[in-house]
Amino acid sequence: MRRTIDWADGAIVIIDQTALPAEFRLLELRTVDELVDAIKRLAVRGAPALGAAGALGVALAARRGGDVRSEADVIANARPTAVNLAWGVGRALAKLGEGADAVLAEALALLTEDEELNKTASKHAAELVLAECPRRPLRLLSHCNAGQLATVGWGSALGVVWHLHERGLVEEVLVDETRPLLQGARLTAWELAQADVPYRVQPDGAAAAAMARGLVDCVLVGADRIAANGDVANKIGTYGLAIAARYHGVPFVVVAPSSTVDTKLADGTRIAIEERDARELTEYAGVPVTPPDAGVFNPAFDVTPYELLTAVVTEHGRFTP
Amino acid sequence: MRRTIDWADGAIVIIDQTALPAEFRLLELRTVDELVDAIKRLAVRGAPALGAAGALGVALAARRGGDVRSEADVIANARPTAVNLAWGVGRALAKLGEGADAVLAEALALLTEDEELNKTASKHAAELVLAECPRRPLRLLSHCNAGQLATVGWGSALGVVWHLHERGLVEEVLVDETRPLLQGARLTAWELAQADVPYRVQPDGAAAAAMARGLVDCVLVGADRIAANGDVANKIGTYGLAIAARYHGVPFVVVAPSSTVDTKLADGTRIAIEERDARELTEYAGVPVTPPDAGVFNPAFDVTPYELLTAVVTEHGRFTP
Repeated sequence: MRRTIDWADGAIVIIDQTALPAEFRLLELRTVDELVDAIKRLAVRGAPALGAAGALGVALAARRGGDVRSEADVIANARPTAVNLAWGVGRALAKLGEGADAVLAEALALLTEDEELNKTASKHAAELVLAECPRRPLRLLSHCNAGQLATVGWGSALGVVWHLHERGLVEEVLVDETRPLLQGARLTAWELAQADVPYRVQPDGAAAAAMARGLVDCVLVGADRIAANGDVANKIGTYGLAIAARYHGVPFVVVAPSSTVDTKLADGTRIAIEERDARELTEYAGVPVTPPDAGVFNPAFDVTPYELLTAVVTEHGRFTP
Repeated sequence: MRRTIDWADGAIVIIDQTALPAEFRLLELRTVDELVDAIKRLAVRGAPALGAAGALGVALAARRGGDVRSEADVIANARPTAVNLAWGVGRALAKLGEGADAVLAEALALLTEDEELNKTASKHAAELVLAECPRRPLRLLSHCNAGQLATVGWGSALGVVWHLHERGLVEEVLVDETRPLLQGARLTAWELAQADVPYRVQPDGAAAAAMARGLVDCVLVGADRIAANGDVANKIGTYGLAIAARYHGVPFVVVAPSSTVDTKLADGTRIAIEERDARELTEYAGVPVTPPDAGVFNPAFDVTPYELLTAVVTEHGRFTP
């Protein structure tokens, strides 16, 4: 499996996530504009992968010269919710005084770290899941995509599935399709299929019914930003899922590298939530679904209060607010 | 507004709900096979409308002669969850001894009743909503379609919106798009647009976030079958919505004609839940969304226990288990 985002021949190379699962296509991004466009239209997405994108974007800008700090600002603000983006930008930018090569070296170090940290975080989380859930093999529920495609490699929440699957402990993953952009049906299902892990895709609305039928031992999700008190911003639908899990006594585990923690925010109410384009709901593949001019409520993320979570797990183990 | 389902010139005439909102198209159904096909592919849907379809189907069979009872059986079993379908079939079939004209007269009487009963049930529910929710004007949340398109006319849950809108008491309806077949985005939004009621479409997963932001005064849904103890089978996603509403202290009201009550079923665990075709999730408009051969969990309905509901309202007022 190649990295979701990497550096080659002076360009950022990403797996185009808008083309999956129909087509596995690589994109070469040679300018900051191309990178920002790729971020905005979710060709690269997922908080840890956005951290890598931010750092590599600064490396790109530094090699091309020009007003690197102002370009770094544009990259950092391409999307508002995932704190990792600005974090990656900041880390690379701190090396700007040492020259373009030092910036690139820092970005590449961040990429290597990301894979390792997610592997470690998901290993901790796998142990926690085994301790919380007595049933073997396990039936896990996934929302959105927190797999290798959301990171440089390996994955966060889906990384737990890889660890458990290696040990033969996964019966099935129920995959929320995750409207509006179907990252579950398109990306998580694709990753699970590649890895030969049994899975079923379900409408987001079926998750509570699956819990009521006793089909879910544990819910696993990633995070886009974690406040100091442990509140978690993640893909829209996560919050309702956490409420349903609590109602059914199903453990709910968040897995993310510690770069997702924003210690500057006291709690989740302060997390900026991105509103996405109406056409994500009013059209499908260019075909109108709703009446013309339908208004939408289309927040990309919601905030789940820490008290609804069984645990937030990073590479350091269980996160303590 | 014409009826969703009616009788004209020896045929059942329905609004083709698969074509909305792009096209308003009427279909003439002249054989039981055509009717059963229309029911299975949801060209006509909604529990009360299915009651009318069942009765008119028997009228159609009776006029054409043949083995009416066996054809009635096929109609009654076209879909398993909505009890109204078998109820409508049974009511018309009871007149078979009096001849085809008597069967048709009974079916047409059922259609007229359906409009009246839904108008009355939703009037009762509107009063209850006004009593439960102090804010004016009201922000209501709708799941799936329980409007005129789900009934012969007027609607059940959406009928409440019409009553309140006539009195200038509706600020907005948040419309769950309702995956997988988007009856909210396609049908409920279309009805609200026709009636000039302000609305916004949202992903099903955004409902809990909308509640957390204080955007929802009351949730209104219809029902496909109500057990004797008040448990309600309704479109998949209703159950999770009810859990979220309870968590936020938002009233949750079910509106349905009493023909939806199945007194033979002690509780909701005995309600047969239809599993729909995988392609509702794996394809969109014929285009693959998931990897090939993805499995699905695609129940059309879920069951919400009565204790999560603020009230179940029929034409007789508040339903008592």
